[in-house]
Amino acid sequence: MITVLAGGVGAARFLEGLAAVVPPEEITVIVNTGDDAQFHGLHISPDLDTVLYTLAGLVSRETGWGIEGDSFYALSALQRLGVETWFRLGDQDLATHLYRTRRLRESASLSLVTQELCRRFGVLTRLVPMSDDPAPTRVQTPEGNLPLQEYFVKLKQEPEVLRVDLSAAALAHPAEGVTESIMRTDGVIFAPSNPFISIGPILSVQGIREAIRNTPAPVAAISPIVGGKALKGPAARMMRSLGLTASAAAVAEYYKDFLDVFVMDVQDAELAPGIEASGLKTVVTSTVMDSAEAKKNLARATIEAMQEVRYSPGGAGKER
Amino acid sequence: MITVLAGGVGAARFLEGLAAVVPPEEITVIVNTGDDAQFHGLHISPDLDTVLYTLAGLVSRETGWGIEGDSFYALSALQRLGVETWFRLGDQDLATHLYRTRRLRESASLSLVTQELCRRFGVLTRLVPMSDDPAPTRVQTPEGNLPLQEYFVKLKQEPEVLRVDLSAAALAHPAEGVTESIMRTDGVIFAPSNPFISIGPILSVQGIREAIRNTPAPVAAISPIVGGKALKGPAARMMRSLGLTASAAAVAEYYKDFLDVFVMDVQDAELAPGIEASGLKTVVTSTVMDSAEAKKNLARATIEAMQEVRYSPGGAGKER
Repeated sequence: MITVLAGGVGAARFLEGLAAVVPPEEITVIVNTGDDAQFHGLHISPDLDTVLYTLAGLVSRETGWGIEGDSFYALSALQRLGVETWFRLGDQDLATHLYRTRRLRESASLSLVTQELCRRFGVLTRLVPMSDDPAPTRVQTPEGNLPLQEYFVKLKQEPEVLRVDLSAAALAHPAEGVTESIMRTDGVIFAPSNPFISIGPILSVQGIREAIRNTPAPVAAISPIVGGKALKGPAARMMRSLGLTASAAAVAEYYKDFLDVFVMDVQDAELAPGIEASGLKTVVTSTVMDSAEAKKNLARATIEAMQEVRYSPGGAGKER
Repeated sequence: MITVLAGGVGAARFLEGLAAVVPPEEITVIVNTGDDAQFHGLHISPDLDTVLYTLAGLVSRETGWGIEGDSFYALSALQRLGVETWFRLGDQDLATHLYRTRRLRESASLSLVTQELCRRFGVLTRLVPMSDDPAPTRVQTPEGNLPLQEYFVKLKQEPEVLRVDLSAAALAHPAEGVTESIMRTDGVIFAPSNPFISIGPILSVQGIREAIRNTPAPVAAISPIVGGKALKGPAARMMRSLGLTASAAAVAEYYKDFLDVFVMDVQDAELAPGIEASGLKTVVTSTVMDSAEAKKNLARATIEAMQEVRYSPGGAGKER
């Protein structure tokens, strides 16, 4: 069994590789819901949907989110009604949100609805929202304290992020099975997602940080920073504006409380010895997931390193 | 000022003609909401939308409802999620339902949302729902007591209607301005809509029947039955199963409490003397609205007959 902490696009790509090298039904994915938002009265779970559509083979290859070839007729009509439409929702995508919103109003939990959607989309990997409680992430910027999607989509991640506000996540309880899936697993992987707005909210949910500290299983993280840049999204800029260096080493440092294994790109090979010296097993491999093969190789390398740690004398050997 | 009681497609076509011969801002349309239903968590007002789309020039000419050229991608995706999709909702149409539903959840009244939609769609005619209260029509059939859309759309009006249940409408209060628009008008017109499931619900709302009985303005009805058949929908079959004759004369009889003027098709000319004899002014004209000209002619003929009644000695001359 493997448990993955996941955000959106980067995580989804990694999970595609993982589900190709491990039986998908042996993977549990704990997905960030700090991005969740309401648009047009619908409950949108962007990260859950990105992972869902990707694992279902339906995701738009161009954007990494939404459904391949989706149309936007409803959104254009909403725009004609004078409604803000900067959050792009395709017509087929809308069906998912309509379904989810109706079920939530019928008092189904987000976990249950996610399970239903997985079944409907033929996804065997087990997706679990980090929490069934609302846990909206906000970001403090010079333009004010903003809901995440407003910063991320409407303002195109342009404002400087002075602080990530995870106080809602800190009040949220983990969804059923989340801490168990961390405690009783063969390995925990932090997908190559934004540490602050994708992994951070998950770690902030009550009991999750402790479960990761206490699990007997090895814990690995894949750096979302390659050559000082984020492959996608604002992680690198965010690191700088939060007073960190935008580097794989800074990611390793940021996660060091939890980790046994750190997976980083060959471009950053010169940083590996320093990270090793801090007591982490370091894997230097290609983390740029530009092909199905590359995704599988990254998954394999991560799993192998976790197995080595697991079966090495002294087990995970963590000082946690 | 003209006030029209309206159902869906037949009424919408008549209103197109009326709005071409009378300044649209002088027309108030009281629309049946007994058809309203929830699908996919959205509040759907089929008759309001049919009238709205028709007057906005957007209606599908083929079906008479929905938006011309609309696509159904969201609905297909809902079907893929295993949801019942017999109620056809187009992608652009969905935007209207999303907008309405969100506004209703924000505690806006259906009247206010309808006003907003009219403004957004550039419709100058004043559309008012018969009530802001829920007033779902049900029909008693051999297959059980069914919500109207289930009978109408899902079962394609096939079951025999034993009784129309308007008990919800009877508990509903008229929307703001409804009774005033009947009492203070130059004429009230019952559009050529189904008397039982379109006009019937409106008449059942508290105070509306009394307002129509008491208004000093002439009241006209246009027969939805032509040559013993309904031009659209199940009105004729429904009349038979409710123990009436499917004829223009039976419609006149059914409405006779209220009427000053009865407008009927030339095909039914031989029924006119009998109806006249019952004390109604009868107008025999073409009521088949197969062209813009035909719609306008029908509107003109109806208005002229009302004016004649109004200015005849003794006014409307009703015994009400």
